[in-house]
Parts: sequence; C-alpha cells; structure tokens
Amino acid sequence: MYKNIKVIGFDADDTLWVNETYFRDAELEFGQLMQPYETINQIDQELFKIEIENLPIYGYGIKGFILSMLETALKLSNNQVSHKNMQAILEIGKTMLNKPVELLEGVEQVLKTLSKTHRLIVATKGDLLDQERKLEKSGLIKYFHHIEVLSDKKADNYSKLLNHLDIRPEEFLMIGNSLKSDILPLVNIGAHAIHIPFHTTWQHEEVHHHDLKNKKYRTLDKISDIFAIL
Amino acid sequence: MYKNIKVIGFDADDTLWVNETYFRDAELEFGQLMQPYETINQIDQELFKIEIENLPIYGYGIKGFILSMLETALKLSNNQVSHKNMQAILEIGKTMLNKPVELLEGVEQVLKTLSKTHRLIVATKGDLLDQERKLEKSGLIKYFHHIEVLSDKKADNYSKLLNHLDIRPEEFLMIGNSLKSDILPLVNIGAHAIHIPFHTTWQHEEVHHHDLKNKKYRTLDKISDIFAIL
Repeated sequence: MYKNIKVIGFDADDTLWVNETYFRDAELEFGQLMQPYETINQIDQELFKIEIENLPIYGYGIKGFILSMLETALKLSNNQVSHKNMQAILEIGKTMLNKPVELLEGVEQVLKTLSKTHRLIVATKGDLLDQERKLEKSGLIKYFHHIEVLSDKKADNYSKLLNHLDIRPEEFLMIGNSLKSDILPLVNIGAHAIHIPFHTTWQHEEVHHHDLKNKKYRTLDKISDIFAIL
Repeated sequence: MYKNIKVIGFDADDTLWVNETYFRDAELEFGQLMQPYETINQIDQELFKIEIENLPIYGYGIKGFILSMLETALKLSNNQVSHKNMQAILEIGKTMLNKPVELLEGVEQVLKTLSKTHRLIVATKGDLLDQERKLEKSGLIKYFHHIEVLSDKKADNYSKLLNHLDIRPEEFLMIGNSLKSDILPLVNIGAHAIHIPFHTTWQHEEVHHHDLKNKKYRTLDKISDIFAIL
C-alpha cells in the first residue's frame, strides 16, 4: 500500500514536538487571572469564541492567541481587568515564544531512518518565525528536504504543495495528529495519511464522526509504530 | 548587464503596494492616545525601542506591532492607560489587517510585461497570512511563479531561496524599496538589485552611508523606469 510513496510529510506541532500542552497551560493561567469576573467555564468559552472570530485575520499561532486573550480579558471583565493582569498576559505570550522544544518519543529515530529511503518534508501551520525557531531548536532540520509553513491546511493548500513538489497525491504520505488538518484533506485528494493522536486537541481541530466514515487512513499509537508498516 | 537574468524577485510592501504609510498612520494614532503621558517624541522613541527588543520573538508584521504598542502603552502610562485606549489599540491592528490593497503606480503594467520574458517571484517578509491576504486582494498572483514569505531578508535567506529556485546569483535580480532588506544582501552575494525608494522608510530599515560604498546597484524613481534598462 505504501510502496509508491516518494515524499513523507510531517506535521510539526504535537507530531514532532509538544505544543498544545503549552496552550492548555496558558489557558489555565488565563482562567486564574480572570476568575474574579467569570466562571472558568465561561472564560474558556468566551476565549474560544473570540479566537475563532479572529482566526480569519490573525491566523494560527501564539501572537494571535495573545491578542485574543487580551481582547477577551477586556470584554469579560467589563474593562475592570487590572493593568498587572494585562502585563501578565503579554508575559504568557513571551514565555510561550521562548519555550524550549520538547521532542516527542521516537521522533528522531523515525526521521533518521526514513530520511535514508524517502524525501521528508515538514508541513506545518502557524507563525512563520515561530515555526522556524522551533525547527532550529529541535535539531531536526538536517532530516528534511523542504519546510513548508502554510497559512492553513485545507485540501487546496496541500494540492498546491504537491504541485510544487512535483509529485502525484498517491506518492505522498502525511503523518500528523490532527484529523482535520493532517488527515482528512489528504485522504480527500487521494494521498495517504497516518494519524497519530496527541493526548490533547484544540477544539477547533476536532472533527465530526460522520466526516470520518469510509475514509481510508491508519491510526498509530506512537510514531515509531511506523516501522512496522513502511 | 541584465541579459543573463532568469528570475526577477519583487519585494511586496512599499514596492508593489502601500504599506509603511499605514504603520506611520497607526503610530500617529497611538501618539494621540498616549499624549496625556508623554511627549510625542518620547512615545515614538519608546515604541521603536520596544519593537526592536521584541523583533527576535515577534518577527515582522502587524500582530507583533500591536503587541508592542500594548506593551508600550502600559509602560509609558505607568499602568494608567485607560481600558478604552487598550481596546483602541487592538482596533488599530484589526483595521490595518483589513485594509484594502493599494497598488503603486505602474506595478501591474511592469509585472504584465516582464512576466512574458522572465520568471517572476515575490520575496517578502512579515506575517504569512497577512502577506497572502494582500497578494490575494492585489489581483497580482497570476503574474508570479512563486511566492516566498521569509522570516527575515538577510544574505543567508536569499542564498537558500536561490538554491531552492535552482539558479545562480548572477541570474537573479531583486527589486525593492529597502536598501537593508532588498538591495545590500543581494549585492553581497553577487546578485543584481534595483532600488526604488518609497517616500517613507521604517527606521529599522535604514542603513549607514558607509555600508553603501562601492556597492553595485541601481536606483530608479519609479517601477516603470525599469523598461528603459531591461
């Protein structure tokens, strides 16, 4: 099934290294700062709503997330949030942007081995500079032929990427943790996809069960399980 | 001199369309909001200082600019800035991100004509999503073979780009408004460069006169002057 694969694409955040955990931690911190004004549940919901509203102009990534937290803080507190807390939110963002890169188990071994037999690329979305920073810190750049930071990961974005790589969909395998961004769009254009779930997923990346019906992709527990099938 | 050129790279902001003017307008607005706390001169200096400090983590673009304005507002006002003004700063950012694209004079004609004889690319820095949005709105995408959004525009970034395009430096001509980002790094790696000044330049993009000594590049008044030399 995978014998015609020429290029393997890897998602980065929560596939190669930890990412969503830092957003969850930031949301918890934000929840504590906002507790005088609302219930944790209400704070979470409002932040998510504002993030989604802002997504078309801010895009994915930490900077847009911080701007949305600041907007939510002003709104939820009815302009009562303290200046100290506004500063604390700016600090949360800077801390996130300066985090070390924590590779997931087995990643380096998988890349090292597969890079001998396939062309490997990274296909990720988010802030350009932040993704480059993480790749740099990860020490993984040497395994990749190409790094593609996409503003979104829809079927159309992938089609353009395959075109650019000059390969047919059936020659491409994508590996990632998001059904919505790394699996479904690929399956829908006739490429291969392997899903490796991460223990936490951002709401916005969740998909309905009926969208997965009759879709051909595999799910693995951990990235090194790929040796059993490739 | 230009007869071996295979690929022409265009900077985007202030070369293809107006950009810096919107940042200047935003700074003026910010200055008015902060006037109760400091002199305009002091406000400008402090904002610039904080922007430069944040550049390594925020990178170029509107979102980092807004985050730096918010930080400056808290600092300059000694935490006295009103919530209304914090909201106003967030709004300045959204307005910038939603601005229509205003093409500079002669741009479309130049791209239309040169695209018949050369491969044209865009090489720009800033927020990925924001640059894609502007290209989309500009109606210019059809003239370009490739769009490259770079996190920075140093010699090294350009060398990688030329490598990726599979051409030698002497086969590449870059056209842009920033001596620091569009001209000097190219000249230093042996590529061609044409400078078309825009009426306003961000301080950070300015270069010292001695850096320009003996550097080979041309300066044109406006983009359509290129027809006289290519």
